[in-house]
Amino acid sequence: MPAGARRIGIFLFDQFEELDAVGPYEVFGAWSTHLPEDGWSVTTMAFGGDEVRGAKGLALRPHLAVEDAPELDVLVYPGGQGTRPLLADEAHLEWVRSMRATVPLVASVCTGSLVLAAAGLLSGRPATTHWASLEHLASLDPSIDVRRDVRFVDDGDTVTAAGVSAGIDMALHLVARLASPDSARQVRRIIQYDPAPPF
Amino acid sequence: MPAGARRIGIFLFDQFEELDAVGPYEVFGAWSTHLPEDGWSVTTMAFGGDEVRGAKGLALRPHLAVEDAPELDVLVYPGGQGTRPLLADEAHLEWVRSMRATVPLVASVCTGSLVLAAAGLLSGRPATTHWASLEHLASLDPSIDVRRDVRFVDDGDTVTAAGVSAGIDMALHLVARLASPDSARQVRRIIQYDPAPPF
Repeated sequence: MPAGARRIGIFLFDQFEELDAVGPYEVFGAWSTHLPEDGWSVTTMAFGGDEVRGAKGLALRPHLAVEDAPELDVLVYPGGQGTRPLLADEAHLEWVRSMRATVPLVASVCTGSLVLAAAGLLSGRPATTHWASLEHLASLDPSIDVRRDVRFVDDGDTVTAAGVSAGIDMALHLVARLASPDSARQVRRIIQYDPAPPF
Repeated sequence: MPAGARRIGIFLFDQFEELDAVGPYEVFGAWSTHLPEDGWSVTTMAFGGDEVRGAKGLALRPHLAVEDAPELDVLVYPGGQGTRPLLADEAHLEWVRSMRATVPLVASVCTGSLVLAAAGLLSGRPATTHWASLEHLASLDPSIDVRRDVRFVDDGDTVTAAGVSAGIDMALHLVARLASPDSARQVRRIIQYDPAPPF
């Protein structure tokens, strides 16, 4: 992480969904590598700094232990099956609230928003999640204005994305918001993101 | 890897591009998890089984050492800056040719096709790569029919994708080809791949 750069931290945990984390990581990594003048960096972190295994079996070693992480400007919270125990873990939800208190921008991907909801961070706010978890999101906090059929919802200090691949769209939006639309367009071109789903 | 399943192996190496590998990994991982009846599995492998670091700094631990890997049905070769030393490494190119001789389907993402070209595997064939490497691809083997402005090129036993995010489109195509369009549509829905680049 370059000294002085503003910091995006992607939180990793066991059973995180791989593309939820690596899609935004690629966007932010390409941004920091190719447009260093924008002054942003990206890192990954997990409790204890230990290797984590994704929901589809991929083993990642985080850059940092959460306990040693510097102050962040953006926290990205991915989804995955591993969110289910976390959203019922009061000590973890207290950590999420402590991050909310110190990190200016908290962004979730997929079912990461379930944890934000369980921590009370989405009360009375618009938010989204993976299409199969929309009802779960509403049940965790009926005051949430659950948005369907959107790729992400930007509610200022909180941004939530829809399922898995939607994290890429959200990350490009954040590049534009944190730097400029031109930077986002350059990053999009670098990762050749002109998607054309064949099915 | 379930016994009896057909095997997709994603080759990892230092300075591979993260999304080149993890995009297809997510597609194939969602496929094998949610549609086990199709009978496919996905794994990652690197020489020596050692941890590798991606071009944007992510540390992954492969499931298998290349030396211990079972026979594959599909080999996926991602791109990234790490392809540049590999395409000039004759011992590595010999390994790539040996894989070609035993693996029915070889698929590259992004600049992975440069290595296939250097190994002579794309001679006289249509192929693509990252937009910034199209000329490099042509220079490695002028007999290649270099395709521009496509997401991927399916030439039977060899499939090449364009840059970075194009691996997701290619992987969905392979699900349809190896199983059925309906399976590809289901996987697309699971990863909520309805991309809408905001810039």
